[in-house]
Amino acid sequence: MEKLYGNAIVGQSGGPTAAINATLAGVIRGAIESDAIGTVYGAKNGIEGVLKKTLIDLSHMTEEELSLLEHTPAAALGSCRKKLPKNFDGENRKIFEEIVAVFREYNIRYFFYIGGNDSMDTVAKLSRFTASIGYEMRVMGVPKTIDNDLAGTDHTPGYGSAAKYIATTMQEILRDTAVYTVKAVTIVEIMGRDAGWLTAAAALPALYTNVAPDLVYLPEVPFDFDNFYADLEKAFEKHPNVVVAVSEGVRTADGVYVGEGTQSGATDAFGHKYLSGTGKALELAVKDKFGCKVRSIELNLPQRCASHLASLTDLTESVAIGKAAAAYATEGATGKMMTFVRGEGASYEIGIDASDISGIANAVRSVPREYINERGNGVTRECLSYIAPLIVGEPTLVYEGGLPKHFSF
Amino acid sequence: MEKLYGNAIVGQSGGPTAAINATLAGVIRGAIESDAIGTVYGAKNGIEGVLKKTLIDLSHMTEEELSLLEHTPAAALGSCRKKLPKNFDGENRKIFEEIVAVFREYNIRYFFYIGGNDSMDTVAKLSRFTASIGYEMRVMGVPKTIDNDLAGTDHTPGYGSAAKYIATTMQEILRDTAVYTVKAVTIVEIMGRDAGWLTAAAALPALYTNVAPDLVYLPEVPFDFDNFYADLEKAFEKHPNVVVAVSEGVRTADGVYVGEGTQSGATDAFGHKYLSGTGKALELAVKDKFGCKVRSIELNLPQRCASHLASLTDLTESVAIGKAAAAYATEGATGKMMTFVRGEGASYEIGIDASDISGIANAVRSVPREYINERGNGVTRECLSYIAPLIVGEPTLVYEGGLPKHFSF
Repeated sequence: MEKLYGNAIVGQSGGPTAAINATLAGVIRGAIESDAIGTVYGAKNGIEGVLKKTLIDLSHMTEEELSLLEHTPAAALGSCRKKLPKNFDGENRKIFEEIVAVFREYNIRYFFYIGGNDSMDTVAKLSRFTASIGYEMRVMGVPKTIDNDLAGTDHTPGYGSAAKYIATTMQEILRDTAVYTVKAVTIVEIMGRDAGWLTAAAALPALYTNVAPDLVYLPEVPFDFDNFYADLEKAFEKHPNVVVAVSEGVRTADGVYVGEGTQSGATDAFGHKYLSGTGKALELAVKDKFGCKVRSIELNLPQRCASHLASLTDLTESVAIGKAAAAYATEGATGKMMTFVRGEGASYEIGIDASDISGIANAVRSVPREYINERGNGVTRECLSYIAPLIVGEPTLVYEGGLPKHFSF
Repeated sequence: MEKLYGNAIVGQSGGPTAAINATLAGVIRGAIESDAIGTVYGAKNGIEGVLKKTLIDLSHMTEEELSLLEHTPAAALGSCRKKLPKNFDGENRKIFEEIVAVFREYNIRYFFYIGGNDSMDTVAKLSRFTASIGYEMRVMGVPKTIDNDLAGTDHTPGYGSAAKYIATTMQEILRDTAVYTVKAVTIVEIMGRDAGWLTAAAALPALYTNVAPDLVYLPEVPFDFDNFYADLEKAFEKHPNVVVAVSEGVRTADGVYVGEGTQSGATDAFGHKYLSGTGKALELAVKDKFGCKVRSIELNLPQRCASHLASLTDLTESVAIGKAAAAYATEGATGKMMTFVRGEGASYEIGIDASDISGIANAVRSVPREYINERGNGVTRECLSYIAPLIVGEPTLVYEGGLPKHFSF
C-alpha cells in the first residue's frame, strides 16, 4: 500500500481515566515518529474541537512533557459526549461535511479518537462517511474505559489503574474497619452500572493478604435482600466487622436498581425523589435489619482519576496501544479499534492488534457467570487471576511539595 | 533520678490514622533500645486489652517487621473507645484497681497510650491514680489524630498524611472535573466535625499547580446559603466547572449542621429521619437553585487510612515522637503528652517535647480566624504555608502483586 502523507488529529472523549493521557502520549509519540504524518494536532474537547477548529499543535512536545502527560489524570485535551447522527441523510449529512471541511483545510489524513463505546461509534461513522465521499484518510479508535466492558479486547486501557486503586483502597479500608470489636458493617460502593469488573477488583487483596471483603455483589447477578441478610449473618459468625463490596449497578430480579428501589419513598427537603445510591440504600437496609453500626463508602470519582496510584502495566500498555494506533494507520488500517490480545501461556503477555470497529462498538462485555461464585456473593480465583496482572507495577512519579506533578496545556 | 526498671505496655486508641502504627513502631524501637525496659507488650484494643490481659510480646520484632508496621494503616494492635470514670470514688475505683493489678502481675512500670483526646484523658487519670496509691510507674501519652485539633502541639501525627491524601485527591478531582464544557458543580466533603484543618488542606494545590478548589468552607465560620449561592455565581464567571471543598462540620449561624438542617424533612423508606451528610445536602441545594449538573463526593474513610499516600514527613516524625516517648519516660517523665514544637526559622524544623497532660486533654484547637479569608470561603497563604511542609515526601513502599504490603500480628 502506498503511503498516505498528511497531518493528524487526535482527540479524547467520554469519561476520563488515569491512563487516557498515556494513550494520548502514545499516539503523539507514534505520529511524531512516523514520516507519513506531518503535524499532529490535538482537538480540544474531542469532535467538538474539530468542528470549532480549536486545534493545538502537539508536534513539538518534549520528552519531559510527554512523560508528565503520561502520569496526568483526566483528559488533558478535554472531553465531550457528542454523538454523531445515525446516518448521512438529509440534515444529518451537514455535520459530517463540516468535519471533513476542517480535515481538508488542515490536510488531515489521520484521525485518532481515544474513548469508549460512543467514541468508537464516531470512528465507525467518520470512517464510512469519508470513504463514501472518496476523501482518503485513516480513522482509528483507541479504547479507554475503566469499566473494562468493551468487546473485542482482552481488557481496556484504564481498567488496570482503576482496579489497582479499588484493590488498594479496599485493603486499607479492611485494615481500618478491623480495629474495633463492635459489630459493624461497612459497605463499599464501586462504579459499574452494567459490568462488575471494577467491583471484582475489590477482592484482589485475597490473593496476597489476610484480609478480603466478606461479600462481593456484581450487577451480573440479580440482587436478593433476603440472601444478602443471610450472607451477613454467616459473615458475622467469622468476625464482628463485615465488609461488603457492591457495584452501583446491582438490581433486584425485577430489574429495579437497588439504589432506586429501597429509597423510592424518600424525598428531600425540596420534595424531590431522593436517589441515594446503592451503598446508602444498603446501609439503611442493614441498619433496619440488624440495628448495628453501618457505614457506606462511595469510592466515587477517584476510581477513574487517581493517577497517583496508577498501574505501571496499565500505563505502559496504554502508551503502547496509542503508539501502535499510529503505526497501524500509517500502514493502511482504518475504521478499526485497537485491541489487546492476551497470550495463552502461564505468564502474562500482551499483544496489540486492531479489529473492525463495526462488530465491536456498542457491544457490552460483562463478567462471565463462571467468574462469579454459585451463591452470587463473591468472585472466583479464575476471575482474580484474570485481573491480577493488570494492576502490577508502580510508575515513578514526579512530586513537587509532596503533590504529584501534572501536565496541562 | 534513679532508673525505673520494669516492663512496658503500649496501646492504641481512638480512630485509626495512616501514621499511628509508625508511632507504635517508634515506641517499640525506643523501648527495645532502653536498658530500663525489659519486655514491651502490646495491649490488644487499647485499655480493654490491659483489662483482659490480651498482651502480645513485641520485644522481638525484627527490623523488617517494624518497617512494614510503619507503612501499615489503621491500628495494628486494634483500638477501643473506652473512657475511664471521672474519679476514683466508690464503684469507679474498681476499674483502676483492676488495671493496676495487671500492671503488678506483669511488673509494668511504663504505659504508653497512642491516641486522641480521650486517650490523653486516660493517661492523665492513670497517672494520677497510680501516683495516689504509690505504685511507681511512668504513664505517657503520644498524640495522633488526622483532625490536627489537639492543643499544645504544633500539629498532630497523622494529620500530614491525611492532608497529603486530601490535597492529592483534590488535585486529581480538579483535573477530572475540568474536562467537560458544561456547567457543573462538584462538592467534596471532607472530615472534620469541629476543626477545618483537613478541609484547608484541599487548597494546597494552589501553591504548586494551576488548579485549586474555587470555594473552601470550614466549620470555624458560620455557613450562609445565600453567600454560598453568590460565591457560586461569581465562580461560574471564571469557568463552567466549579469545585467546592467543605467540612462535614459546617453549621449555619443558628448552630444547625448543614448536613442535618437542609435534609430535616427527608425520611427513608423505613420512615427514619434521613441524615444525608453535608456534601449531599449542598448537592441538593445547588441542584434546586441552579438546575445544573451537581455531584457530591465524600472522601470518607480513605482520608484516615490511605497509607499508600502517606507523607514521609508525617511518618518520620510519628516514629520519632514514639521513640522520644520511651526516652522521656525512662528519664522520669510521667503524666505527659509528647508534642511537636516548630522552629522559628524560615525552613521547616521540628523539635519534640513533652507537656503536662492536664492542660491539654479535652482542649480543641481550631483553625484561627486569620487563616481564613474575610469572606469565609477560602484559606490564606499563611494557612497553606503552615500545612505545606507537613505533606512533603513519599515513603518507599513494599508492593506485592501491585498491592502495598501491610503488617499484621
